[in-house]
Amino acid sequence: MAADPTPADRFSFGLWTVGWRANDPFGEPTRPALDPVESVHRLAELGAWGVSFHDDDVIPFGSDDTVREERVKRFRKAVDEAGLVVPMATTNLFTHPVFKDGGFTSNDRSVRRFALRKVLRNVDLAAELGATTYVLWGGREGSETDAAKDVRAALDRYREAMNVLTQYVIDQAYNVKFAIEPKPNEPRGDILLPTIGHALGFISTLEHEHLVGLNPEVGHEQMAGLNFVHGISQALWQDKLFHIDLNGQKGPRYDQDLIFGHGDLLSAFFLVDLLEQAGYRGPRHFDYKPLRTEDVDGVWASAAANMRTYLLLKERAAAFRADPDVQEALRAAKVDEILLPTLSRRESVEQFRTADADFDPDSAGARGYGFVRLSQLALEHLVGAR
Amino acid sequence: MAADPTPADRFSFGLWTVGWRANDPFGEPTRPALDPVESVHRLAELGAWGVSFHDDDVIPFGSDDTVREERVKRFRKAVDEAGLVVPMATTNLFTHPVFKDGGFTSNDRSVRRFALRKVLRNVDLAAELGATTYVLWGGREGSETDAAKDVRAALDRYREAMNVLTQYVIDQAYNVKFAIEPKPNEPRGDILLPTIGHALGFISTLEHEHLVGLNPEVGHEQMAGLNFVHGISQALWQDKLFHIDLNGQKGPRYDQDLIFGHGDLLSAFFLVDLLEQAGYRGPRHFDYKPLRTEDVDGVWASAAANMRTYLLLKERAAAFRADPDVQEALRAAKVDEILLPTLSRRESVEQFRTADADFDPDSAGARGYGFVRLSQLALEHLVGAR
Amino acid sequence: MAADPTPADRFSFGLWTVGWRANDPFGEPTRPALDPVESVHRLAELGAWGVSFHDDDVIPFGSDDTVREERVKRFRKAVDEAGLVVPMATTNLFTHPVFKDGGFTSNDRSVRRFALRKVLRNVDLAAELGATTYVLWGGREGSETDAAKDVRAALDRYREAMNVLTQYVIDQAYNVKFAIEPKPNEPRGDILLPTIGHALGFISTLEHEHLVGLNPEVGHEQMAGLNFVHGISQALWQDKLFHIDLNGQKGPRYDQDLIFGHGDLLSAFFLVDLLEQAGYRGPRHFDYKPLRTEDVDGVWASAAANMRTYLLLKERAAAFRADPDVQEALRAAKVDEILLPTLSRRESVEQFRTADADFDPDSAGARGYGFVRLSQLALEHLVGAR
Amino acid sequence: MAADPTPADRFSFGLWTVGWRANDPFGEPTRPALDPVESVHRLAELGAWGVSFHDDDVIPFGSDDTVREERVKRFRKAVDEAGLVVPMATTNLFTHPVFKDGGFTSNDRSVRRFALRKVLRNVDLAAELGATTYVLWGGREGSETDAAKDVRAALDRYREAMNVLTQYVIDQAYNVKFAIEPKPNEPRGDILLPTIGHALGFISTLEHEHLVGLNPEVGHEQMAGLNFVHGISQALWQDKLFHIDLNGQKGPRYDQDLIFGHGDLLSAFFLVDLLEQAGYRGPRHFDYKPLRTEDVDGVWASAAANMRTYLLLKERAAAFRADPDVQEALRAAKVDEILLPTLSRRESVEQFRTADADFDPDSAGARGYGFVRLSQLALEHLVGAR
Repeated sequence: MAADPTPADRFSFGLWTVGWRANDPFGEPTRPALDPVESVHRLAELGAWGVSFHDDDVIPFGSDDTVREERVKRFRKAVDEAGLVVPMATTNLFTHPVFKDGGFTSNDRSVRRFALRKVLRNVDLAAELGATTYVLWGGREGSETDAAKDVRAALDRYREAMNVLTQYVIDQAYNVKFAIEPKPNEPRGDILLPTIGHALGFISTLEHEHLVGLNPEVGHEQMAGLNFVHGISQALWQDKLFHIDLNGQKGPRYDQDLIFGHGDLLSAFFLVDLLEQAGYRGPRHFDYKPLRTEDVDGVWASAAANMRTYLLLKERAAAFRADPDVQEALRAAKVDEILLPTLSRRESVEQFRTADADFDPDSAGARGYGFVRLSQLALEHLVGAR
Repeated sequence: MAADPTPADRFSFGLWTVGWRANDPFGEPTRPALDPVESVHRLAELGAWGVSFHDDDVIPFGSDDTVREERVKRFRKAVDEAGLVVPMATTNLFTHPVFKDGGFTSNDRSVRRFALRKVLRNVDLAAELGATTYVLWGGREGSETDAAKDVRAALDRYREAMNVLTQYVIDQAYNVKFAIEPKPNEPRGDILLPTIGHALGFISTLEHEHLVGLNPEVGHEQMAGLNFVHGISQALWQDKLFHIDLNGQKGPRYDQDLIFGHGDLLSAFFLVDLLEQAGYRGPRHFDYKPLRTEDVDGVWASAAANMRTYLLLKERAAAFRADPDVQEALRAAKVDEILLPTLSRRESVEQFRTADADFDPDSAGARGYGFVRLSQLALEHLVGAR
Repeated sequence: MAADPTPADRFSFGLWTVGWRANDPFGEPTRPALDPVESVHRLAELGAWGVSFHDDDVIPFGSDDTVREERVKRFRKAVDEAGLVVPMATTNLFTHPVFKDGGFTSNDRSVRRFALRKVLRNVDLAAELGATTYVLWGGREGSETDAAKDVRAALDRYREAMNVLTQYVIDQAYNVKFAIEPKPNEPRGDILLPTIGHALGFISTLEHEHLVGLNPEVGHEQMAGLNFVHGISQALWQDKLFHIDLNGQKGPRYDQDLIFGHGDLLSAFFLVDLLEQAGYRGPRHFDYKPLRTEDVDGVWASAAANMRTYLLLKERAAAFRADPDVQEALRAAKVDEILLPTLSRRESVEQFRTADADFDPDSAGARGYGFVRLSQLALEHLVGAR
Repeated sequence: MAADPTPADRFSFGLWTVGWRANDPFGEPTRPALDPVESVHRLAELGAWGVSFHDDDVIPFGSDDTVREERVKRFRKAVDEAGLVVPMATTNLFTHPVFKDGGFTSNDRSVRRFALRKVLRNVDLAAELGATTYVLWGGREGSETDAAKDVRAALDRYREAMNVLTQYVIDQAYNVKFAIEPKPNEPRGDILLPTIGHALGFISTLEHEHLVGLNPEVGHEQMAGLNFVHGISQALWQDKLFHIDLNGQKGPRYDQDLIFGHGDLLSAFFLVDLLEQAGYRGPRHFDYKPLRTEDVDGVWASAAANMRTYLLLKERAAAFRADPDVQEALRAAKVDEILLPTLSRRESVEQFRTADADFDPDSAGARGYGFVRLSQLALEHLVGAR
């Protein structure tokens, strides 16, 4: 039986998750607004370690400096009293109509300037609150018709914004790194940097690319039908997994933000296995929406469910790795043989090309890999049947 | 009315496209094998400029050196007589059972070695035939269960293979660049480097990254529900559009390889517009499958249809760009304003943060962008109604 | 060049389409509320013939009888003055939190009762305003977890509601038929009666099934990757195409409600061809959302674009059918031969089984169908190139 | 721990599943052909109860009567000796080129006649072997372009074929019912009767509709992003679940035919729960493909994995239903309240419309349904954590 969550598990939640009032494109809110202070305390009681926020979650859009200061102080006090940390902060560049064509890549230059200033201001707050990761979800950066957006120029503007931001944290000596959160579509018809891959490609063009990584979200990749475990593997491989958004999704459709594990459960199992195996040290951050059918009790039940599911999967994955039958099956499937370089040490291409004269493709092609056995072992561990 | 295709249009076809015998997962071939020599001549007659090939398209897998030489000579003669060029070559690392767990990333090291040797050998032939682009479609590099593949190690092997290949063309002084062709799935459950983005990210880690770019395929990106025009824009923006595979697809489902334009026609229109606007100089390469319902006459009809559709769309796109109403609508939608940097020349961040004091987000948010008008103008040009 | 729309074209719009204030799951409204009276007049000026409405579009939820009466009177007056008709009405069973688990199939019986009463009341109004079609979109009938909904019992309740409603219009002698609007998901994780097919199956179980048909929506079927033209064909074939919602969608993703034709244009062409060929007499009803980037001018531009696109496609489809080359190609492809019954008149099964002794499957299998030629002819007509 | 499979579990397999040689659109077979006799014996040893077949699986296409008789006899002997039953048979109307535009709905009437004769002949064999279900998968009935198929006429032909077949089994007094297997696409661009729903709608138009039901396949519905448990619920509700094809799929993409449970595991859990709760008495038939990476040992491992996964899920589902906490949570979520009719017994519509005067939608809308708790309980039972 999985233990209860503790701060050592590094579970964090966005304020906007439990605070979501459950309005959707076809419906009004079904829940009252939650005071961020209450959310902070309840999350701490449930075993969370951290809380993250958009600027507007804490400080209403358009607040003057007095209100701003008061809200920040109050939030900070709650976080301190609850014993939480603020590992991550982010900017809301999507709710207000001004961002309807994007923030960093709006066709309207005055909007781009406003957006960038809004981020800079909240980066200061993030640094002040001790957040070390600053997430950028460019949900409005995109288009519905290819006639309306010069994508190459938009990427120039995106890069410009990232270069300004990274230079700024260097100049301020902030201990803050940026994490881009890709998403293929919704609310825009098509969003720029739609997947982990596109963001990795983009990052490689930046001035201070070491300061920019990823915040991939389970559901966002699965909206494109992509394998999230593969994506996270590539992000880890490129040392760019700065943060992660855990939730659930049932394939290509609207962004569901289900509880972690309540979408593709097998994938969630392998994801936890990967994060734990790979020694990922960042937050296990849940970015989900409590179902619109639930009241506030359901909100807290859903927050607890995210953490409990993670811990259950962690336990199952550990048992999978420890099982001698699994270890034998992994060897039989040569899962470890891929660690060996293809060419031998100091083997020249000339030597290589004439080596292996006795290799017989037909007999190699006839050998079974034993992947069925491995996948069934995983399934049985996942369902607790071994 | 669009002109007939000429070599100046730089249309090329894979030998395997017109040569596809129309077997599918549920059915036997419906067409006889075509002699590559006949294909070369017919394509030339239809107005094509180039022909591309997999090693096994010309030289049957497992041929000895005598057969190999004879086949190459015969193919070369046909290409020369027909007045075609061979702009691109590629390797078949997917048909034979030996590649069932991949080529460069098979768990079995002996298979990886065999695969890499097969590529090296065909790179020699490509160089000999004057091909300047060498495409790598890693359709078998992937997995059906996350238990079976250490993706991070697999990417190490993928990178190793690319580093060997790029060093090889440098050492041989070949005028050959490599183009990776991404695909999300099929025939593997999930394929490594599933999108343009993932390949761009991967390429940024290579030793000789200037020698490695992309060969994106319309249908492959659309299988993930991604906007192909956005993807090509990013590839161009990163100077990585080395080659392109034009065809059609109806969204996330099996790989359809329809005739260019016979899938998402609006997207095809904007793609041609982009390629022509951006000054893309590479081949317009069709990688499609003539419908299984067709006989050989249908094969040639489909080859002609690809080229004719491209030329029609090119004509429509040119008229769209030349229309003063469109130019006015583009300005009204500030499509060109995104070319302006967000910060002014020499504007410091400090200056920037206190600028624009009079910016009013509410009134900026109330302004309409006029994207509807633009997209309707595009549609009307596409259907020839303006 | 397509003519301007006139009432003879039977174009109608939902009040909620032009009236959508452009709030979405991530953003606030970008446009002011429109007075329904203004919308009615503007639509008439643009050439529309009809206007449809949800009860709550005209009478705010929870209005007392005085307000209700006043609003109805005002709306009716506007419709009359503008010379429009009200061909269809529908109920809002999705915005208020009370419907968060559905209307007819909520687990909560008191909610089901409330929902059914709400519909009955608006059916009276529909009849009063002369609407002959009453649409039911059960967007909240569904679930996010299979644990929470007994689907078989829910279908019992759905059927009960339909039986009550149909008996009611019979008893009241209303000239009203019901049209179910299927949708696969959003706002619920999975919606009951997700496609045209599921609704057809359901309708076959109803007491007064002649009074119940379909209101299919382009985008809803395309969200499931289904061929809309095929679906409409089956609905027509079962005499159940009572109404239609025209719009655009780019495959499986969130519900986009684009302008008609601004999604899959080839499919839109074949849809118009089908509706016109099949003699469909119902409204051409647009259920779309003007892009969130647009102001009110963009709203009216988008309304006009829907109608103009339909008329352009109608013109192109007529030319396609009139082209002698197309007629010849259709015959060559045996498109008309499918009209012949497979068995001959009075042919017994015994006779049939021993007939065609000389049929040679191999030679029949070798014949080409000529579908490529047909589809290219269609594309060229669509782009106005023939 | 789940027990081993026994004939009482009614597990059956298609001969073509274990017998699949693992050729795919891009690759040659990786496994030798299996003798059907061996397959029958191995399946029996593994605990299967039944075996199903296409005509061509047992009797090669084009065999003369002598070969046919000999093959049937040999197959029958193996089945008898192994102690299996043959609960289902079906026709191959897709492999041979003659069916490239379909069987019952080919544009070519001579092909339609050939197809129907082929089915009739195999229905005789099915009856002879005691099969009580005859499956029809119309995988080639469809089109790639809407120009090429008159879908309404094609449905006429489909209906004609079904009417001939049902009349035939009545006339022959065969104890055989037909089960249509829907699929949205692949190998055709779009297939007629693409989902459970479309087939239910179609069946309602048939002469002997009581003889025609469904054979839904997990992966086929999931290729359209549809909820399989919902679909099966509707099929059961309409008394049309005559047979079922169990396998796994990872959402909209090519037809994967994974092992049961190796796709969407949560959905598989709820499916088994439904089948067992609903008292479904038909075969638990696996229609899957052993991964192409496997040798013959992997084939048998995969066959065993299907059955074992079903039994594990059955055990987990039984524990879920037996758990008092679950029962309490179901009541709290009013899952059973949907069994109550919405109107009271003998309640007239007039009475109903004025009842519930004290119903307050706002307070009803504020009540939480407790679905999160239910879904988490299900997940925890699935992973064996309760």
